[in-house]
Amino acid sequence: MALADSTRVPGPDAPIGVFDSGLGGLTVLRALHERLPTEDLLYFGDTARVPYGTKGEKTVRAFARQDAGLLVARGVKMVVVACNTASAFALAHLSDVLPVPVLGVIEPGVRAALAATRGGTIGVIGTSGTIRSGRYQQGLEAAGLPAERIRAAECPLFVPLVEEGLGGHALATLAVAEYLRPLRDAGLDTLILGCTHYPLLAADIGAYLGPQVRLVDSAESLASAACVALADAGLLRSGPRAGRLGFILSDIPWKFAEIGARFLGKPIDDVESVGLDEMEEAGHALGSGRTADARIRKDPS
Amino acid sequence: MALADSTRVPGPDAPIGVFDSGLGGLTVLRALHERLPTEDLLYFGDTARVPYGTKGEKTVRAFARQDAGLLVARGVKMVVVACNTASAFALAHLSDVLPVPVLGVIEPGVRAALAATRGGTIGVIGTSGTIRSGRYQQGLEAAGLPAERIRAAECPLFVPLVEEGLGGHALATLAVAEYLRPLRDAGLDTLILGCTHYPLLAADIGAYLGPQVRLVDSAESLASAACVALADAGLLRSGPRAGRLGFILSDIPWKFAEIGARFLGKPIDDVESVGLDEMEEAGHALGSGRTADARIRKDPS
Repeated sequence: MALADSTRVPGPDAPIGVFDSGLGGLTVLRALHERLPTEDLLYFGDTARVPYGTKGEKTVRAFARQDAGLLVARGVKMVVVACNTASAFALAHLSDVLPVPVLGVIEPGVRAALAATRGGTIGVIGTSGTIRSGRYQQGLEAAGLPAERIRAAECPLFVPLVEEGLGGHALATLAVAEYLRPLRDAGLDTLILGCTHYPLLAADIGAYLGPQVRLVDSAESLASAACVALADAGLLRSGPRAGRLGFILSDIPWKFAEIGARFLGKPIDDVESVGLDEMEEAGHALGSGRTADARIRKDPS
Repeated sequence: MALADSTRVPGPDAPIGVFDSGLGGLTVLRALHERLPTEDLLYFGDTARVPYGTKGEKTVRAFARQDAGLLVARGVKMVVVACNTASAFALAHLSDVLPVPVLGVIEPGVRAALAATRGGTIGVIGTSGTIRSGRYQQGLEAAGLPAERIRAAECPLFVPLVEEGLGGHALATLAVAEYLRPLRDAGLDTLILGCTHYPLLAADIGAYLGPQVRLVDSAESLASAACVALADAGLLRSGPRAGRLGFILSDIPWKFAEIGARFLGKPIDDVESVGLDEMEEAGHALGSGRTADARIRKDPS
């Protein structure tokens, strides 16, 4: 990998690692690239095991551990969990076992919603896992929002609709109405798009809810948080060279070229694929906590 | 596991193993249980990595190898691949590496369609992987059906619609019309439901295509083929005891109880879950061909 760092303790020139269950996190990669244009970014999408949002907590945590382990093995200086379900179920575990800083998308999403609301009800939509975890709801309540101003809804068909490129299609219109009717009736003023796929349905969602509802996604807020965290750790990359983007996937899906370009906003030229064996190894290599073992990473290849 | 066989070479009293990417294969399990009521059946659903139908050939083959390996490690006397995508991409590989007979769903589906047609056009619908593999189309052509009498269509949203329990819903009606319009316009007389999820949309599909189109699924034809194969191998279980059903899953999905009961036609009481580690081990234990190594299986636990 061109982006790999061969030092054992990654310095400012190491890439930022970003992972998601699949391709949805490319919307986050895009925001990071815009906010931090000189940083190298290494994206891993677990396309072999996507989706995470329908799956149980233990399974998602085991997958997230392998995903983050793979990025750490490639020498990243920070890991961004660009998947809401993985952030909901695995962020605490990853903070414990990773030898580098780790950021999730939920806290930035909560902050962005609190900044956007004008005193009304805040809604949050996401996968079954994200919504049932209660993490967004807890985050809003912890910030002082009373429970009666919070509404949440699972939208399990949104991910497959986006993966099939059906934003704007009659099927998306119908699914949006089906899932969002209770939220619309609750009189929202702000809606958190609690899944990195959902920005690709923003037009459908906005048309249904009307212009008075502000749609919030975590990407920009997360990019700002990453900037601050890197600065605090003395890890911001300086220098005039434009940041490079690297892509690793655990499967090359049938419609990858089309779908990937839609998420990233431009074609993805060069993709490395990794097999099950390397994923397994990456999970095992992390160890069980912030011990010396957790800092051992293999040389990037 | 109550169903495990502790002998090294499984005899007639060993269970039949059945696997699928998730819960769709329970429609096949049901047909096997009806056709072979004294056989014990051990089902494995790879719910942690479902779906397979959007993923590439290499990935599906690696998963199928672990799935089958897990069943072999539990002492099954035969493996039924109750997943069309895995049958399309992995049946030849599994036949090569498994120490027990293996059956897939595609050949029985082709036979059932040829028995059902009255000389018109045969359609086949399935996941992107199954349709792009061309296996059904090749099977029909090999049986002498001219290419102009074969139509195929990918229906990628059908699996998530079924998983969400939306058979009969307006979203299913719309998706059926969207995917099947070209087939209906081609004047089908027979349609192969080339995915084990699709029988749960049979009412929607039948309403759209009309009563002149016969809907064919592989399950009954496969159950007959399994009966013949077991008899040929001297492995049919005799005796009056009713066959027992065992269930192993790699993840317990959020909506498992509801969805599993819908597929099986009755509640699923007792489920064992396996982790990533056991899946990895099962894949590695198979070896690379019909060698002595391929026959080593660990003691059932």
